[in-house]
This record gives sequence, structure tokens and C-alpha cells, in this order.
Amino acid sequence: MGIIVQKFGGSSVADVNKLEMVAEHIIDEVTKNNEVVVVVSAQGKTTDRLIFEEEEVTKNPSKREHDVLVSVGEQITIAKLTMLLQKKGYNAISLTGWQIPIITNNEHTNGRIRYIHKDTILELLDAGNIVVVAGFQGINEAGEIVTLGRGGSDTTAVSIAVALGAEKCDIYTDVDGVFTADPRIVENSKQIKSICYEEMLELASQGAKVLHNRCVEVAEKYNVPLYVKSTFEKNSIGTLVKSQKNLEDLFINGVTKDDYISRITVAGIDNQIGRTYRLFKILSDNKINVDVIVQSFGEHVTKDIAFTVKMSDLNKTLNILEENKELLHAKEILHSENLSKVSIIGVGIANKPGVAADMFEALYENNINIHMVSTSEIKISVLVNSNDANKAVKAIHDKFFND
Amino acid sequence: MGIIVQKFGGSSVADVNKLEMVAEHIIDEVTKNNEVVVVVSAQGKTTDRLIFEEEEVTKNPSKREHDVLVSVGEQITIAKLTMLLQKKGYNAISLTGWQIPIITNNEHTNGRIRYIHKDTILELLDAGNIVVVAGFQGINEAGEIVTLGRGGSDTTAVSIAVALGAEKCDIYTDVDGVFTADPRIVENSKQIKSICYEEMLELASQGAKVLHNRCVEVAEKYNVPLYVKSTFEKNSIGTLVKSQKNLEDLFINGVTKDDYISRITVAGIDNQIGRTYRLFKILSDNKINVDVIVQSFGEHVTKDIAFTVKMSDLNKTLNILEENKELLHAKEILHSENLSKVSIIGVGIANKPGVAADMFEALYENNINIHMVSTSEIKISVLVNSNDANKAVKAIHDKFFND
Repeated sequence: MGIIVQKFGGSSVADVNKLEMVAEHIIDEVTKNNEVVVVVSAQGKTTDRLIFEEEEVTKNPSKREHDVLVSVGEQITIAKLTMLLQKKGYNAISLTGWQIPIITNNEHTNGRIRYIHKDTILELLDAGNIVVVAGFQGINEAGEIVTLGRGGSDTTAVSIAVALGAEKCDIYTDVDGVFTADPRIVENSKQIKSICYEEMLELASQGAKVLHNRCVEVAEKYNVPLYVKSTFEKNSIGTLVKSQKNLEDLFINGVTKDDYISRITVAGIDNQIGRTYRLFKILSDNKINVDVIVQSFGEHVTKDIAFTVKMSDLNKTLNILEENKELLHAKEILHSENLSKVSIIGVGIANKPGVAADMFEALYENNINIHMVSTSEIKISVLVNSNDANKAVKAIHDKFFND
Repeated sequence: MGIIVQKFGGSSVADVNKLEMVAEHIIDEVTKNNEVVVVVSAQGKTTDRLIFEEEEVTKNPSKREHDVLVSVGEQITIAKLTMLLQKKGYNAISLTGWQIPIITNNEHTNGRIRYIHKDTILELLDAGNIVVVAGFQGINEAGEIVTLGRGGSDTTAVSIAVALGAEKCDIYTDVDGVFTADPRIVENSKQIKSICYEEMLELASQGAKVLHNRCVEVAEKYNVPLYVKSTFEKNSIGTLVKSQKNLEDLFINGVTKDDYISRITVAGIDNQIGRTYRLFKILSDNKINVDVIVQSFGEHVTKDIAFTVKMSDLNKTLNILEENKELLHAKEILHSENLSKVSIIGVGIANKPGVAADMFEALYENNINIHMVSTSEIKISVLVNSNDANKAVKAIHDKFFND
């Protein structure tokens, strides 16, 4: 008997029938004499509808009021799920972010959790309740509602698990765990039984949309075991995300893909100290999120710096760079659009010679051009044309998992 | 320059176009250098939709969770209205019930305001903001959301006006003030320019659905001038509700109607002390709301007690009385359905002989049967068949306002 945190996302709570399935997973744990805290997202399209209504009022809402508006989505879900559990004869009670409270920083629409007061939840658990918590939301020190941005409900769940010293945190979603590649792209992709935080972080940030990396980072920091499971399969085995890797785990854990990427090359920068710093400071000041960075020497003791940004940030980034071209002492600003990043993830890639070569061979055999390469301790990423991306994922997956 | 509280109900904030009209009324007061606190209800059908969704989950929700669910309605409105005011270039900020906080008792779905912390609102006003407050909601001492029941947003507005020592409280609605009779029934009904709290209370409880009586009671207790105005007419004069009546005000202030009433007669009760008490104690214990009560002697030293209840409470009341017939020492339980209560309201009715006679004459001339009569200091009510009710309102209105 211990405390278990369960998280159910928007598609898992989309309607009454799905809430019934959610209730079964909760009751399963209660029946095993566990104390259960449930974290839920807004139902299905609720947030989209609220944002549509918001746009009828203004295209440019203040972030504070946007948070006031969209945070009602989770509040609706906690009330409904709690009523359903009560109807089934269980003691249940709902808590909003401010009722716990979950204290965040001041960054509206993209808040970070500072700490969670655990007493209210613990008292309600002690009194025999299933505690149903609104994900994605908290309040800042001034008592204003702050939402947590993408992956917010996952982060709420793990943070509560940490605060309560929970045994584990189950993240229920619409897929049955984490796979070696997106099953929609690679038919014979395999479910990963167990994966370590670091690998999961790479998978998450590489576009495996199952778990948000903020949630994994918190789980890693405080060593909370995460299970990724399917809401809709009764006996979902799921994927365990934990600190230690089992010996029998796969050496390569997965192949992932990230679309809508553009590459920018700032070419012909004179080779003075501080140029690289200045470039990325300008981008950071303008809130441009840069992903892969590659720096190489160009001709005549100048250097070229290439990096990737999301397609949606491309024009803004190009404008900023053109404005600052002189300041950066750059000769040219070049760019390529419609690229995808395909990566393989696995602990120890760096220590295993030949992985990169195998990956490049798979791409070569399939006539796929590589635009950029970047490697880390546990990851090798290549930039390819988006047209080639699915073929690349399949080719690499076949090379490592079916050969 | 002073503090003004404005309240806008559900039909006044139903969509973006209506919110635009609301914003104009707010900006009008800001332009006059007033500090403005705005209290809003949920938009149009939002609460109905939430309750429909709730019923998909359970027909019998816990009151606590019901409050968690429906209170999102006002939260949506405050966010949207605040965004709209900001878009128009004004400083505005929203506050939910818990952010102020408005402290209530523990009666979920039908809470009463205990006190309102004024500091947060005052600080935000001082900083130059229009403060947009969610009506209808507060929190109890335990921090649980409690909604205020019918007329809750009106009550929120007046209570805030009291807490802040506001100059006045404007209640915006879809009619242009209070009338001598419902304009939909009596074409030539007249708008009342000024009315005292006590009369307004009688009007409100008699079915003039403009202002809820809880709101008027609070306004009377703390002597806050209330203006009832139309959201949709630019130069609405409205009706002033205040403590002192002007000499030139009408002697009879209005004719009202309440439908869906049934009368129950408990007949042949033996004439012992305590029987009346016991009867109404039983009804009160069963939460039956009794309106008019008339007691008379029956035959053979027994007495008959007649009283009215809402049609919706009729069957429940009859069952309770049948169960307790012996305990009450009653011979018979009789009832009539489909009655309406028609009343005239005016300070000093009791001191003015002939008012009742004039009223009864109007009904007699129109061949309307009277089932029951009840009088107070400022009101005379008659019970008539519902079929006759509109005719009765017109006849009485003509007698007092057009003769």
C-alpha cells in the first residue's frame, strides 16, 4: 500500500465513455489498497474551443487573462470525474491548482512549478479519498492563475508524485507505451519495456509525443518511476521509465522524427572571439528556440555557423539576422526549408563504434541525402528532406531492429 | 469621482457583440473618472450547457463538485471581458471569487456571503485598473468553491459595493428598469423611476424577475443605492432603488404575478395548542418552502390551515402530510392546482382604506374568482386560477394606474 499518481490526458477524458474507462483504472489501484491521486487534463477539444472563443474577442489576449480562461478546462474535468467516482460509490474529491496550492513562477502560459503544498492532498488521502487534481495549472505567489504550457499536466503529475513521495507515476495516454519508432510510420516497431530517463528525454525532445521532456526531467531529478500506459487497453503493459537500465534492454532504444524544421547558415563570419556568443545571444533575446548547432570553418579564416529552428520561427529569425548582419560580421545568411530531423536514441551510442556508420549506410542504401549531422552521448541526429523522413525512419529502424 | 459597481447578467454578456455593449457602459463610467468594479454572470447558456454535461455523468452530483463545475462559467466571462477592455486600451484585470476572496458559509449551491476581503480589489483600483469580478461564487473557510444560488451575481455586486463603500451599484439587465406590471402582460405598464427597498423586496419576491430579493436585502441593510438599467439601451434611465421614497412617487408601485402555485388545505385539525407549529415544523424539516398561510376555524371547534407551495413541491408535500396525518390530528388533506398569486405592492397600503376593496372590485368586474387573500403592510395578494392571472394583472393595473 502506497501512494500512486495517475495522469490522464485530454483524449483519455474526452467524453463520458472514456471517463468510465479512466474510472476503472483508478478503481483498480484503489482495490489494491493504494492511495490514489489522479491528475487530469481538459477534455478533448475543450481547450481548442476556449481558444476559438478567445479569438472572437481578441487575437492578442494578455497572457494573464488567457490563463484565467483556459484553466477552466481542467476544472471541468476534475468535477466530472469526481462525480463519476462518487456515483460508483467511492470517496473522491477534486482540487484545482490553487486549492492545493501548486505554486509556480510568474511566466503566464508557460509557467514552471516552484513547489507543491502537500498537506491538503495528504489529509484528503488520509480521510480515504481519491484525490482528483487539475493538471496544467497553478498559481504564482500573487495568487494569479498560471498555466504550465505544453506537457503541463504530465509535469503536474510527476511533481505531485515527487511532493508526496509516491511509489510511481502512471502516465495514461492513447498509445500503449513508448515504441522503437512511431507505429504509424514503421509497422513493425516494437514496444519498449523499459527505458532510462536520459533516453526518454532524447526520445521526447526528438518528437516521440508520448511524454513531455519537462515531466521526464523532473522524474529523473527525483528518481520517480514513470509508467506510460494505454487508457484504452485493459491490460496495458506500458513502458517503464526509470533510472537504471536493465541489461537485456535494447542497445538502441528508438528512432524518432521531428518535422517542420529549417536550417539557417550564417556564413563567412570573421574568426574573432565572441561572434558565436553574440549570434546566439541575439536569437535568445528574441525568444528564438535554436535546436541543433553545427559550427565549421569556412574559407579564408572565416567560419560558418549552421543551426536549426522551427519552420514557424524561420521568417522572424531571418529578419533578425539580416538586421544584425553587420553586427555579426557575417557575409551571408542562407537557409533551407522543409527539413526533418531523424534520430536514433540509446545509452552508450557514443561508446559503440559503428552506430553512426550503420545509420548513414541505411540512409545511403535508400538514396536519402543528409543535410546535417549532430551527435550526443546517446543520440545521433541527421537532417533530411521532409519528403524522405518517413523512409529514413523505416530504413534506420530496419537496420537496427530487424537485421 | 468614486467607486461604482456595475453588474451584468447572463443575457447581457451572452456573446461578443453584447460584451461590446457592456464595455461601452464600463468605459462611460471610467471616462467620468470613476473607479469601476464590474461583476458578471456566466454567458447566456453556459451554465445550462455545463449542467447538461453534468447530467451525462450523473443525475445526482455532489453539491461540492457541482459548484466546482458551474463556477467556471463566470471565470470564462471575466477573462473575455477583461481581454476586450484591454484590447480597447484600458487597464483591466479579472478576479475570481477565491482570488478576492469572497468568503461564504458552507452551503454548496446556495451559499451566503459572510464577508469580502476588500484589499485586493482596492489595490487594483488604486493601480488604475477596471476590476472585473466573477459573480455567483465564493469560497468557504476551507477554501472550497461555493456558488450563491439564484440571484447570486446580483448579491455579489451589492455585497462588493457594501465592502468597498461604493457610491452606487448599477444592475444592468435586459429590461429598462422596474415597471408597474410586466410589460409583456400589461401594455400600458409604466416604468417606476424610484422605489424603496421594501417595496422592491415585495416586487422581487412576487415575481418581478428583475432583481433578486437577496440582493435588495443586502442593499437595504447597508443603504446602497441600486440602479436597475438596460444593457441594450444607450441612455437607459432605469429605476433607482433606495431607502427614501419621494413624495411624488406612486402610491401603488406595481402589480405582480407568480405562477405555478398550488394550495393545500389541512382540514379538521383539532384545536389544540402546538398543532400549527407541528405542521410547519414537519414541512420545514422536509425543506418545503411555504408561501402564503391562512388559518381559519372549521366546523366543530376544529381548524383549517391553508397554505401555498410551488407546484413542483406539491406531490412531495402531499405525501409528507399523508404520512403525518395522524400525528397532525387532521381529518382531511385537500389541494387545488394551477393557481397564480397576483399582488399589488406599495408602501402604506395598510394605512390607506379602500385599496383592498378597489382590488377586489377590479377582479369582480372581470369575473375572476378569488381563492385566497393575504395582506401585509405593503402588499395585498390574491390567489386566482392561472387562466385568469394575466386578466387579473391587467384589471388591477387599470384600476390603480389608469382610472
